[in-house]
Amino acid sequence: MTPANPPKTDAKRHHDPEIRGFASDNYAGAHPEVLAAHALANGGHQGAYGEDDYTAHLQQLVPGHLRASAGAFPVFNGTGANVTALQALTDRWGAVICAQSAHINVDECGAPERVGGLKLLTVPTPDGKLTPELIDREAFGWDDEHRAMPQVVSITQNTELGTLYTPEEIRAICDHAHERGMKVHLDGARLANAAASLDVPMRTFTSQAGVDVLSLGGTKNGMLFGEAVVVLNPDAVSHMKHLRKLSMQLASKMRFVSVQLEALLAKDLWLRNARHANEMAQRLAEGVRAVHGVEILHEVQANAVFARLPHDVSRRLMDRYRFYFWDEAAGDVRWMCAFDTTEDDVDSFLAALKEEMAR
Amino acid sequence: MTPANPPKTDAKRHHDPEIRGFASDNYAGAHPEVLAAHALANGGHQGAYGEDDYTAHLQQLVPGHLRASAGAFPVFNGTGANVTALQALTDRWGAVICAQSAHINVDECGAPERVGGLKLLTVPTPDGKLTPELIDREAFGWDDEHRAMPQVVSITQNTELGTLYTPEEIRAICDHAHERGMKVHLDGARLANAAASLDVPMRTFTSQAGVDVLSLGGTKNGMLFGEAVVVLNPDAVSHMKHLRKLSMQLASKMRFVSVQLEALLAKDLWLRNARHANEMAQRLAEGVRAVHGVEILHEVQANAVFARLPHDVSRRLMDRYRFYFWDEAAGDVRWMCAFDTTEDDVDSFLAALKEEMAR
Amino acid sequence: MTPANPPKTDAKRHHDPEIRGFASDNYAGAHPEVLAAHALANGGHQGAYGEDDYTAHLQQLVPGHLRASAGAFPVFNGTGANVTALQALTDRWGAVICAQSAHINVDECGAPERVGGLKLLTVPTPDGKLTPELIDREAFGWDDEHRAMPQVVSITQNTELGTLYTPEEIRAICDHAHERGMKVHLDGARLANAAASLDVPMRTFTSQAGVDVLSLGGTKNGMLFGEAVVVLNPDAVSHMKHLRKLSMQLASKMRFVSVQLEALLAKDLWLRNARHANEMAQRLAEGVRAVHGVEILHEVQANAVFARLPHDVSRRLMDRYRFYFWDEAAGDVRWMCAFDTTEDDVDSFLAALKEEMAR
Amino acid sequence: MTPANPPKTDAKRHHDPEIRGFASDNYAGAHPEVLAAHALANGGHQGAYGEDDYTAHLQQLVPGHLRASAGAFPVFNGTGANVTALQALTDRWGAVICAQSAHINVDECGAPERVGGLKLLTVPTPDGKLTPELIDREAFGWDDEHRAMPQVVSITQNTELGTLYTPEEIRAICDHAHERGMKVHLDGARLANAAASLDVPMRTFTSQAGVDVLSLGGTKNGMLFGEAVVVLNPDAVSHMKHLRKLSMQLASKMRFVSVQLEALLAKDLWLRNARHANEMAQRLAEGVRAVHGVEILHEVQANAVFARLPHDVSRRLMDRYRFYFWDEAAGDVRWMCAFDTTEDDVDSFLAALKEEMAR
Repeated sequence: MTPANPPKTDAKRHHDPEIRGFASDNYAGAHPEVLAAHALANGGHQGAYGEDDYTAHLQQLVPGHLRASAGAFPVFNGTGANVTALQALTDRWGAVICAQSAHINVDECGAPERVGGLKLLTVPTPDGKLTPELIDREAFGWDDEHRAMPQVVSITQNTELGTLYTPEEIRAICDHAHERGMKVHLDGARLANAAASLDVPMRTFTSQAGVDVLSLGGTKNGMLFGEAVVVLNPDAVSHMKHLRKLSMQLASKMRFVSVQLEALLAKDLWLRNARHANEMAQRLAEGVRAVHGVEILHEVQANAVFARLPHDVSRRLMDRYRFYFWDEAAGDVRWMCAFDTTEDDVDSFLAALKEEMAR
Repeated sequence: MTPANPPKTDAKRHHDPEIRGFASDNYAGAHPEVLAAHALANGGHQGAYGEDDYTAHLQQLVPGHLRASAGAFPVFNGTGANVTALQALTDRWGAVICAQSAHINVDECGAPERVGGLKLLTVPTPDGKLTPELIDREAFGWDDEHRAMPQVVSITQNTELGTLYTPEEIRAICDHAHERGMKVHLDGARLANAAASLDVPMRTFTSQAGVDVLSLGGTKNGMLFGEAVVVLNPDAVSHMKHLRKLSMQLASKMRFVSVQLEALLAKDLWLRNARHANEMAQRLAEGVRAVHGVEILHEVQANAVFARLPHDVSRRLMDRYRFYFWDEAAGDVRWMCAFDTTEDDVDSFLAALKEEMAR
Repeated sequence: MTPANPPKTDAKRHHDPEIRGFASDNYAGAHPEVLAAHALANGGHQGAYGEDDYTAHLQQLVPGHLRASAGAFPVFNGTGANVTALQALTDRWGAVICAQSAHINVDECGAPERVGGLKLLTVPTPDGKLTPELIDREAFGWDDEHRAMPQVVSITQNTELGTLYTPEEIRAICDHAHERGMKVHLDGARLANAAASLDVPMRTFTSQAGVDVLSLGGTKNGMLFGEAVVVLNPDAVSHMKHLRKLSMQLASKMRFVSVQLEALLAKDLWLRNARHANEMAQRLAEGVRAVHGVEILHEVQANAVFARLPHDVSRRLMDRYRFYFWDEAAGDVRWMCAFDTTEDDVDSFLAALKEEMAR
Repeated sequence: MTPANPPKTDAKRHHDPEIRGFASDNYAGAHPEVLAAHALANGGHQGAYGEDDYTAHLQQLVPGHLRASAGAFPVFNGTGANVTALQALTDRWGAVICAQSAHINVDECGAPERVGGLKLLTVPTPDGKLTPELIDREAFGWDDEHRAMPQVVSITQNTELGTLYTPEEIRAICDHAHERGMKVHLDGARLANAAASLDVPMRTFTSQAGVDVLSLGGTKNGMLFGEAVVVLNPDAVSHMKHLRKLSMQLASKMRFVSVQLEALLAKDLWLRNARHANEMAQRLAEGVRAVHGVEILHEVQANAVFARLPHDVSRRLMDRYRFYFWDEAAGDVRWMCAFDTTEDDVDSFLAALKEEMAR
């Protein structure tokens, strides 16, 4: 994969580019086509902080995937995308209804609370998915000053548990929220995987389903870094640029975020990457189902496989492949596939799993 | 500069890589050696969120430039570096003494206040530089609960006005602050330019002068993005990783930040880039001094030239080269040189300036 | 109750001082002995912001009830006491484990999150009480920067559901928390009711049980306004005065808060008031138990009675006596007794309840 | 002043009610008519959190002083009033232009920044007063996302330096701010003193001059505690109740704040108190002017006298009367008169001043 005459640099390679695991889709590097885009965007001077030709072009590209009036605001990472989006959708007294397992609740070191002053109203779910009924457990008390006012429902597609909402389910959530004066945010850190799995355009289950603001993931789908807050409902928010800046998510050389998104979205790289990762997860799941004593925990609908197996087996397997416990006490693990996971990777891992289960 | 067989990507070039201006050092792109480092670090799986071999290597590299015990925490941008560093150095009741012209005061959309809840105690300065005497205007009242407690002095090297502190001046500030129980933060967005201009190692005016925590700039010196919070005094702070995460500055694929810093710091790219930018600013300043009617405003000690000239001349010149007013009412402009500014760029700009002055 | 020659004032009486309900203990006014204390503390000049003789005296009084080294910091209200205390016990990256039904979670309009940037890690409980086991559901991940760090366990005594921890239960929670490096905060908005019910000094289940910081309630026990943050473990916190000020809880004429606390704590007014309210709740509960079709929901251990009864009965009863639904869908109501609830009040209410149940 | 048969209480008098100084108007206690109002409002049950008859009556009383549509929101203290008001007038990206000497800038331990995330854009002034020209130093850059957006001008009447804006000056500021899309907040901690000195109704220089939101002071004018945020322009803000709650300024037994305001505002107690304090300051200033070697620093327009005198004289005088240095290095002191300052107090103090000057 390394070119014959790599350009000069004082940096050195410190890792083995042939080793891959199942720990996370952000353990993968960048897709070569994304790296190539950086070279294209380099050279010469371009306006900083988004006044560049790549960010301008992105404003033409994103609407094609989502909605004519969509506005894209590139940011650095998913935390930044989510917290910027949620601040845009809430007043100082607003609260956000989300699943208890939502990334914004369990994986941000409290950034929504600390940076945005946001109260999260969390609801336990069996599979990471909210429903109108589950939302109603926290959707009340808008006139009660003692209660942080529910103003946003935030859902994740696909969810942190690898499950998927159908477009109809999202539409039902959006209708339900809108009827109650709330807006809907969708955390799309793995939006491409969801679209690939549902086999529909991204718009089908976002803009067309009524989502107001979207965190559009890039890093987990082959970028080096970078996501975008995409405003699908321009009436729902304002001053996104100010919010992005004060949330410390404004890239000075933004062309290098925007051109990565272009590499993904210009044609079908976003879909190729996601589809491949999903297929590898299916291959892995199929293989796992054939291993006696290992239980698949959630429906495998994207690029994650959750499984339960004996703790000591997991420990031994971790010596050979990197991955994480999801719930160590229960023996639950998460295996993630990425755009660069190969069939060989999956097959070798399955062989190792069988070996360790047999010991 | 484009290779003969550029790798395939669906992204397109949208700009002219031969056009450069004098608006900002972050209008420049990335140095080719930095881009090349990205290719090196790519491929295979590497631990996310800093558990990668490039970030590990950086922990060996940074101490060589600064101090044996220095710890480097890569972040996305300068706002993030500064606000993370200042939160680390303050209690909930703490305040930060800085120059009124400091970037943290005038250019962050209030991020220190909003994200960190930080009170800035600002002092007007003639040239962007604090002194012990100026610090004392706000360094009082530590026992007074009505006053946000001065806990940090934050200085910028080189300053936002293109001026430089000598190592002795920084030492005096650090001694003064430490004697009063305060810590010192140095915003080094252009630290390399300062080192190049002073012709000393970076440690001479940071760790060796008593600075506790440093924001080490990368973007303005040839990186695509990325800076690092460098803890020089480990006793001064703790839990930097938590602070970086909650400040939304934790890169999942951190290897791509770290390897850029390695490209700069492994040998002398950091210095070559900075020295060149400084030299171009000197060339520009010398040329400007020969133009009757244009006044240089501050001593040109790094890569910035501040000048005063007739407003209409500036306006016409802006049609030909991009740059900004610093104080439009006063007729003050800022001209920045970057690592990629050429002698031709400077000479052509000077010719244009003379033409417009003559009209 | 009105004196024969009331002092002159331009204000007028707008309400009927003979009407009382069961809505809340803060629907009651102030105990006459508390009002009388205000007159004592009035007149002359006294240092502001706590530099007065009444606040000084309070520092001698509070230790007698709690612990020799206890420090009392009067504040305005319970929200202020809790959020000030929790900020004192947490770093910027800290989180607070509490019951899902805790006042800090459901009744503060998100003040802990907004003012303190605090992440609450909530646990469902059957009766409003945490246990070591329940705490462990959220007590993990101290080294994981993705997780807000559990630094405090916050319990409420008596709980929002009118239930009580025994001293041993609190001791077990404190030991459990301390072993894990966490501190314990006790929200004592109704601390006096708990002491009266347990029939032990306040210290038995606070300082002696290992609680680090206490919110000592006053308003609900006969004060006009005012609570105190009481630091039981001086090693656990610092700079309480700064935290109180920045939390906007610093009274300028603090003598008027402190002397109210003195009126309660100097002898036994705190206990008389609480005991009476509890007794009225017992009288009420006993009466209710005799009414067929009305179910008492939680053990009545303080001054609250939670009951379930037909919705239309509640509605009709609310036309006669003010009280609130606790869970309207379930038909649950809360009836609170206060220091000024009379036996007649209870008996009349029971008669009304019976009447409405019989309709 | 103590009644013959004081009501029983376990609290004790700890201070000498005959000793008064010149340190601050909040060293004074409460006016007896205010205390008497508390007795009136006591007894029986009244809705908590503002659902009481006294707060309802206040909504009829305040408009008479200010504007028919004015809404009053009682809070605990001045910090709370100001920060609640400023949050109501700003978006998350908003900033507040104020005088450098403003209480919100120098005397709140950073509460505006910490609680509200508010950026203060401060302007040095000769006498504590802003002007349209001074405002313009910070009123720019509304479209610049790098700058916190100026959305409010906050002025103090009378100012922290004892100076006064004329109604025309406030009108000019309001017009200037409104033309630029900004709102105006007035910190009226000593509003009554200003009205007394100008000899006009409070509305003349607030609602009628264009002020949008007012912090109406009570504590310094004879209340035990309590202020009110008064919304003069209902179109400027919304959800004040939620903001008050999350700012931890919601009194449960609000009747005891509201009835104090009623005691002041029902007839002329507010004006009697303020006028007396102002007159005592005039008496003091006249006496001081006759003392050779003591310089009056600002025009004495309310109840404060700022003076410069030899440092050792101040020190000796402080042993006899309590007051504060304003700028110890310069030898500047502040002498405040209160509603309860007597002619004897002033004359004795002047005698002492002369004695100490003569030593």
